[in-house]
Amino acid sequence: MQIIDGSVTAPQGFLAQGVEAVIKKTDKKDVAIIYSTHPAKAAGVFTTNIVRAACVDVDRSHLENGYAQAIVANSGNANACTGQSGWDDTLAMARLTGQLLDVDPHNVLVASTGVIGVAMPMERIEQGIRAAAAGLSRQGGANAAEAIMTTDLVSKQIAVEIEIGDHPVRIGAIAKGSGMIHPNMATMLSFITTDAVISTQCLQQMLAASTDQSFNMISVDRDTSTNDMVLILASGLAGNECIDSPNSAVGKAFQKALDYVCTSLAKKIARDGEGATRLIEVEVINADSQTVARTVARSITASNLTKAAVFGEDANWGRILAAAGYSGARFDPGQVDIYLGGVQMAADGMGFEFDEERACWELQKDPVVIRVDMKSGQERATAWGCDLTYEYVRINAAYRT
Amino acid sequence: MQIIDGSVTAPQGFLAQGVEAVIKKTDKKDVAIIYSTHPAKAAGVFTTNIVRAACVDVDRSHLENGYAQAIVANSGNANACTGQSGWDDTLAMARLTGQLLDVDPHNVLVASTGVIGVAMPMERIEQGIRAAAAGLSRQGGANAAEAIMTTDLVSKQIAVEIEIGDHPVRIGAIAKGSGMIHPNMATMLSFITTDAVISTQCLQQMLAASTDQSFNMISVDRDTSTNDMVLILASGLAGNECIDSPNSAVGKAFQKALDYVCTSLAKKIARDGEGATRLIEVEVINADSQTVARTVARSITASNLTKAAVFGEDANWGRILAAAGYSGARFDPGQVDIYLGGVQMAADGMGFEFDEERACWELQKDPVVIRVDMKSGQERATAWGCDLTYEYVRINAAYRT
Repeated sequence: MQIIDGSVTAPQGFLAQGVEAVIKKTDKKDVAIIYSTHPAKAAGVFTTNIVRAACVDVDRSHLENGYAQAIVANSGNANACTGQSGWDDTLAMARLTGQLLDVDPHNVLVASTGVIGVAMPMERIEQGIRAAAAGLSRQGGANAAEAIMTTDLVSKQIAVEIEIGDHPVRIGAIAKGSGMIHPNMATMLSFITTDAVISTQCLQQMLAASTDQSFNMISVDRDTSTNDMVLILASGLAGNECIDSPNSAVGKAFQKALDYVCTSLAKKIARDGEGATRLIEVEVINADSQTVARTVARSITASNLTKAAVFGEDANWGRILAAAGYSGARFDPGQVDIYLGGVQMAADGMGFEFDEERACWELQKDPVVIRVDMKSGQERATAWGCDLTYEYVRINAAYRT
Repeated sequence: MQIIDGSVTAPQGFLAQGVEAVIKKTDKKDVAIIYSTHPAKAAGVFTTNIVRAACVDVDRSHLENGYAQAIVANSGNANACTGQSGWDDTLAMARLTGQLLDVDPHNVLVASTGVIGVAMPMERIEQGIRAAAAGLSRQGGANAAEAIMTTDLVSKQIAVEIEIGDHPVRIGAIAKGSGMIHPNMATMLSFITTDAVISTQCLQQMLAASTDQSFNMISVDRDTSTNDMVLILASGLAGNECIDSPNSAVGKAFQKALDYVCTSLAKKIARDGEGATRLIEVEVINADSQTVARTVARSITASNLTKAAVFGEDANWGRILAAAGYSGARFDPGQVDIYLGGVQMAADGMGFEFDEERACWELQKDPVVIRVDMKSGQERATAWGCDLTYEYVRINAAYRT
């Protein structure tokens, strides 16, 4: 597998663009379109919040036939908690995009992110959609990545290439964070494209599997949003042997590349968590079960006290063990070893004499790596989060006004 | 019911004291004893974290006979994650207290709060226990309340008196917060005394019931601690008709007073949450079930985004509804009305034209009152939390060092 330049337009058959439509208050891009020149196999995973934006339900319904040809997205307004008019506006976004691109509106997916409960400024949205559609190009991926940002500080893109048979197959993706991030599917969007030939069923299965160990393993603040989704479109232009089983050799190769793409973006989102100064990576090893490993890893990345301790460069392993303890997972705390990078801080659930200076140095690294060895099985899981800082409070104390 | 002066020594038969034993770095009281001159009926509720301090397990075992005569507590060191020596130190605290007060050590309850994973400085603890035992008095309740504080800014005490028949019956209590507060039973301690004549079974049932709607409904940061407990001792000196059923008239009167005591202290703990500038009270009304009402209320008080919005005086009802949505409770978001004090912000799950200035004014009040009307049933629940501030981050970025 090779990392290549670009993002959603790196695979064959995709154009994209992002434009300024004054949906956000600031002078920034806020409407994006990703377009597949051919009808593409499509799949998606969505927020588990029961308070959902209309776009989530619209997209689920548009994905029922297994195809899509365009994604239209905006930042600045989530179009959530906006009732029937919000639903109508979502459909209008799909309809207009479909008209402009000569695509059945049912094959257009819609994504929105931003403030909740405010009516969509449809006139400006429509101007933005027209401009983005008119500007679609193979160079437009970076603009699309910018246009979906909210409080993100950096745009998030990646593309990789693998060989399937003699055919180079590419996967490209963009994503946005950065507050309201908590598994499952928080205020985050990710749009992935590939030119792989792949069955729709396989695409859905593999997207769910990758999401489960990437986007679903990050936490910025435990708040799960109303709008989150990961969408994937597969144009089929790579001409490879069709991937029709996740367990085939080609299926495994594709899954590995997709895992890499999703994990890279997930880490970028966590690292760019609101106010974050450092990525925190929590690896739980030798657990009894996947559930225990995942639950403990996620509980630690989500602990405000642990996050604040990392910000303060305080090697407070007691908070780490306490967060494992209240996670809901069953395990024997008396067997747990805890490491901070190369420094062992706890052995068998108890404090372990360690060099505070070395521990402090590990806490200044980015990422900060916390390893929890449960010494009771063979399962492992990794979760990512970020430190809790003054800046997080500042950003969220005055987001809407 | 009448609110009276004092706390744990207000009921007949109780003495208390709190002293400085240099367990905390700062020049503050850190060892406390509460003593009942007569063997008292006793009950307790404890942390649900599976990583528990030895004192939690020791107290459970000491409560098996339904009696206790003393509580010894220290702040500055939680004696959690300290293995066998931690266990031994807990028993040593009970033993020494028992010797000094001529009480069977099995009738002494132990409580510790503070940093996790550090060995107890037993020499200083023992000096503290000796000094506290020597100083026991009816005036010592306030000192005991101070001695259990960690990052609390104010000590927390209350006492009430009710009449049962012709007999005045008193309940007094102290408590401490203030970080790592999340239901169920977070880093909080509360010690309650009463002179009521009451059966042990009733005492346990009523304590659990009161805790469930008070201490278990507060959240500062969702972190659940290793050491939390609420203990109650009943000296029986009031001479009232024995309370032997929660459903009797006297049972109900006592429950109501106990609820008041626990709720008052719970609110004091939330208000004094680390870095908090305001108490947040979330009332969920007209829910389908108690579970839905409680789950939604707690989810909102625990939402970092909602807490930061209150700090920033930002009437961001979308975050409130989103927090309800990811709580895990099943409900129809399209029926929900949300009020901020007297200002309706959302109707039927959608934004509602409201006066931003009035909303901002409601957000400057203490407490900030959020009411969520689910319009689908008759159940209600109230939860309490606090805003998320720069000061919370500062305190927790450098607690241990």
